[in-house]
Amino acid sequence: MSSLDALAENLPEGRLLTDPDVIDSYARDRTFLEPGKALAVVLARTRDDVVTTMRWASEHRVPVVPRGAGTGLAGGATASEGSVILSLARMTAITELSPADEIAVVEPGVITADLDRAAREHGLMYAPDPSSYEISTIGGNLATNAGGLRCVKYGVTRDSALGLEVVLADGRVLNTGRRTMKGVTGYDLTGLFVGSEGTLGVITSATVRLRRAPAAPPATFAAEFGSLRDAAAAVSAIMAAGCQPSLMEMLDRATLKAIDDWRNIGLEDSTQAMLIGQSDAADSQAAITAMGRLCEASGATFVAVSSSPAEAEELIAVRRMAYQAKERLGACLVEDVCVPRSALPDMISAIEAAAARHDVMICTVAHAGDGNLHPVFVFDHGTAEPPAQVWAAADEVFTKALEFGGTLTGEHGVGVLKRRWLSLESGPVTADVQQGIKAVFDPLGILNPGKAI
Amino acid sequence: MSSLDALAENLPEGRLLTDPDVIDSYARDRTFLEPGKALAVVLARTRDDVVTTMRWASEHRVPVVPRGAGTGLAGGATASEGSVILSLARMTAITELSPADEIAVVEPGVITADLDRAAREHGLMYAPDPSSYEISTIGGNLATNAGGLRCVKYGVTRDSALGLEVVLADGRVLNTGRRTMKGVTGYDLTGLFVGSEGTLGVITSATVRLRRAPAAPPATFAAEFGSLRDAAAAVSAIMAAGCQPSLMEMLDRATLKAIDDWRNIGLEDSTQAMLIGQSDAADSQAAITAMGRLCEASGATFVAVSSSPAEAEELIAVRRMAYQAKERLGACLVEDVCVPRSALPDMISAIEAAAARHDVMICTVAHAGDGNLHPVFVFDHGTAEPPAQVWAAADEVFTKALEFGGTLTGEHGVGVLKRRWLSLESGPVTADVQQGIKAVFDPLGILNPGKAI
Ligand SMILES: Cc1cc2nc3c(=O)[nH]c(=O)nc-3n(C[C@H](O)[C@H](O)[C@H](O)COP(=O)(O)OP(=O)(O)OC[C@H]3O[C@@H](n4cnc5c(N)ncnc54)[C@H](O)[C@@H]3O)c2cc1C
Ligand SMILES: Cc1cc2nc3c(=O)[nH]c(=O)nc-3n(C[C@H](O)[C@H](O)[C@H](O)COP(=O)(O)OP(=O)(O)OC[C@H]3O[C@@H](n4cnc5c(N)ncnc54)[C@H](O)[C@@H]3O)c2cc1C
Repeated sequence: MSSLDALAENLPEGRLLTDPDVIDSYARDRTFLEPGKALAVVLARTRDDVVTTMRWASEHRVPVVPRGAGTGLAGGATASEGSVILSLARMTAITELSPADEIAVVEPGVITADLDRAAREHGLMYAPDPSSYEISTIGGNLATNAGGLRCVKYGVTRDSALGLEVVLADGRVLNTGRRTMKGVTGYDLTGLFVGSEGTLGVITSATVRLRRAPAAPPATFAAEFGSLRDAAAAVSAIMAAGCQPSLMEMLDRATLKAIDDWRNIGLEDSTQAMLIGQSDAADSQAAITAMGRLCEASGATFVAVSSSPAEAEELIAVRRMAYQAKERLGACLVEDVCVPRSALPDMISAIEAAAARHDVMICTVAHAGDGNLHPVFVFDHGTAEPPAQVWAAADEVFTKALEFGGTLTGEHGVGVLKRRWLSLESGPVTADVQQGIKAVFDPLGILNPGKAI
Repeated sequence: MSSLDALAENLPEGRLLTDPDVIDSYARDRTFLEPGKALAVVLARTRDDVVTTMRWASEHRVPVVPRGAGTGLAGGATASEGSVILSLARMTAITELSPADEIAVVEPGVITADLDRAAREHGLMYAPDPSSYEISTIGGNLATNAGGLRCVKYGVTRDSALGLEVVLADGRVLNTGRRTMKGVTGYDLTGLFVGSEGTLGVITSATVRLRRAPAAPPATFAAEFGSLRDAAAAVSAIMAAGCQPSLMEMLDRATLKAIDDWRNIGLEDSTQAMLIGQSDAADSQAAITAMGRLCEASGATFVAVSSSPAEAEELIAVRRMAYQAKERLGACLVEDVCVPRSALPDMISAIEAAAARHDVMICTVAHAGDGNLHPVFVFDHGTAEPPAQVWAAADEVFTKALEFGGTLTGEHGVGVLKRRWLSLESGPVTADVQQGIKAVFDPLGILNPGKAI
């Protein structure tokens, strides 16, 4: 009996898939990375399926690659050679939703936006909203500590994670955290799993915090600028004034052009950058007017302010289109540096300089209120790997971000793509400690090997 | 040369204190716990002092008890037998305060309220404000993940911690986290140290997040109730209505009586509980009026609403007096259960039942908006240890809190006092994993042994 047969025998009918085409369809995320050849896919439907898989994997020393929806941008869910892909995408139950305690208990395969919609029925919301929220899973969001548009006001996924159920590498089940708003019993294991990219355990259930949904529709502004630096200065001014935007996104000319070519948004020739801001506060109209004025003071060439929900949706839609618009131009290396907010203008100049020096097309969008920039390096679809000048430009961008006191990845994670720069950001003591922690949870090294640390 | 001489030789003049009276004055926190006999106190002034101490301690296998201001309520800073007490209280520099990036870099001995005051000069605030904020240190707050009054709106200490410098047990220096608002490079080591009660490393510097201070003074209400359950119902109603209080504290009759006896606050005979709420939102007046109405609807016998800063200060002062007022009554065992908000009324009934059944005086205050209750068990000053009926009542309270889906400690930590109940809350897998993590950071077990896990 092959080792895979032993797994098949212990799983319910239909959970183990070995058809090569099926495997292939589960082997990639949204990066260009070529996966290794995986043995099989487990489509888990229950925690027990995960326990069975991990026990078997430990016994047979088979690497396991946990997977949500595969929308990751760092290669975290890329299949490795000889691995079993463990998909959590079919565990989609919202087990509990308590309006009184403002929490939900969910399986990992729940689509982010589905949880938000379920919460809205009770006047609540699930705040973390990566741009991918209609296609990503809560499990993937937790494993990457996903950010999103609203996190400038409501924080990242970690800030909504209260407790987890995790299946460890050896199949033991660990419960972390709590159902309460506060709690300090023992080490913060919940926080440790959040952002660990499937390398410490498999999340099979999560207790997350919901928040009151704003009562009134948000007010929105969109401002056009003749330069990216002006737009960045407006962001600084708005944040420093304490306007508390619930969204603050920036798009550069290359991105706007890509969107305009695709959907015709009437882009002016002089527009080099756009800033979109929202306030969902009780005094949103006043807040947005103040933000609009600060844009003007920072040199905006055009400012539109609106409290119409339809117009707001349209503006946000432009932002959410950015990624797809760029994919039409070529293959994309999506980067994710984050800098202290005051360094935003300098970081933008550095990105422009890197693009010019290495003759690479870089389109940048940013969760600007957080100082989190996504420079997207566009290259020819024909080449499997980004060409050398793209890596050279990326290297320059990373180095600059670190120089400005920033980080390599604000929200997408390290995955495979950012591993080679890791040592620039964190020294040998950090590496040592992280390897130590990894060994506590996964002594055989079977959980998503070669990722994250 | 005794091993202590070797330490003295490597530390600058005046850092090592061996006078028994001095040692004794650094050996206790605010619990009744009798400390073990410590060898010496190191009054660190620099990171290097800490490095020197930890290297020496590793070499000589001497336990080290890190210490901030010693205001802890769980025994975390209680000296253990044969240990060296490592006080961080003299490392009081605010190294950096950046209004543009809304962050500060501080040494661990900075008094919490001092940082807040420094931030206010720039229109910012340091949000976490334990009731002890005028006497506790940032290092102690981080090590316990302290909560406070404002955390119902702004989160606990963890939510303000961005990055740490930590000296490990062997003297190596680890830098965790970042200066940016977001970042997901590697495991969340910052979060792991926050709340670890000095058992994983010694925090020697912290990068913390500041927030915009509210522009206008807050509006405040105080409501009196004929029963604690009514007060708890009002809390639920207020939170469910999405009023977003920036403070929501509850005091029971026993606490009010103790304060009244001390400072004469004109307590009515019929008042069984008081609720104090604040809003610092732009529409604070409207929010507070709404909260007041919800109190009335929940049966409040008297509601006062005010937006005068002076009156607000007076009301909050009453709350901050609670602990001292109780200390006048006898020795205190201060407990710290936290339950899902909807369980607040039942938890209160359970506390009252335990007090009655075991004939113990329990005064309760609560960070009610978070479901975090501090039942204070008062007993005779004469006895060194709480008498058996106090432990029996405490045991009942803990058991009930867990039954309601709650936790043993919302913000004070496990320290020594809560260790014997730990296994009720977290199972053997958790214990195993925590010991594993402890061994990664402190393989010799010299960092605050016998605490927290
Ligand atoms: C158009 C687009 C827009 C995006 N916008 C954003 C954005 O705004 N913010 C942002 O942060 N990201 C964004 N992303 C990236 C991506 O959507 C997020 O990283 C998301 O959290 C991944 O979720 P997933 O379910 O697709 O996870 P996957 O890609 O399947 O997996 C991601 C990682 O998590 C691990 N993992 C997945 N599930 C589990 C589990 N249950 N237990 C343990 N480990 C698990 C995997 O091993 C892998 O390492 C975007 C992606 C796209 C394509
Ligand atoms: C009147 C009163 C009111 C209080 N109110 C609150 C409240 O509202 N909320 C709340 O959460 N707590 C409250 N507390 C408890 C206490 O003030 C907090 O736990 C506080 O965070 C302790 O800070 P400290 O500097 O006194 O630390 P200490 O008591 O000296 O130490 C606490 C723990 O932290 C460790 N430690 C200290 N400094 C470091 C460091 N630099 N590196 C590593 N480990 C370290 C110690 O080893 C110990 O385990 C209150 C206490 C009192 C007396």
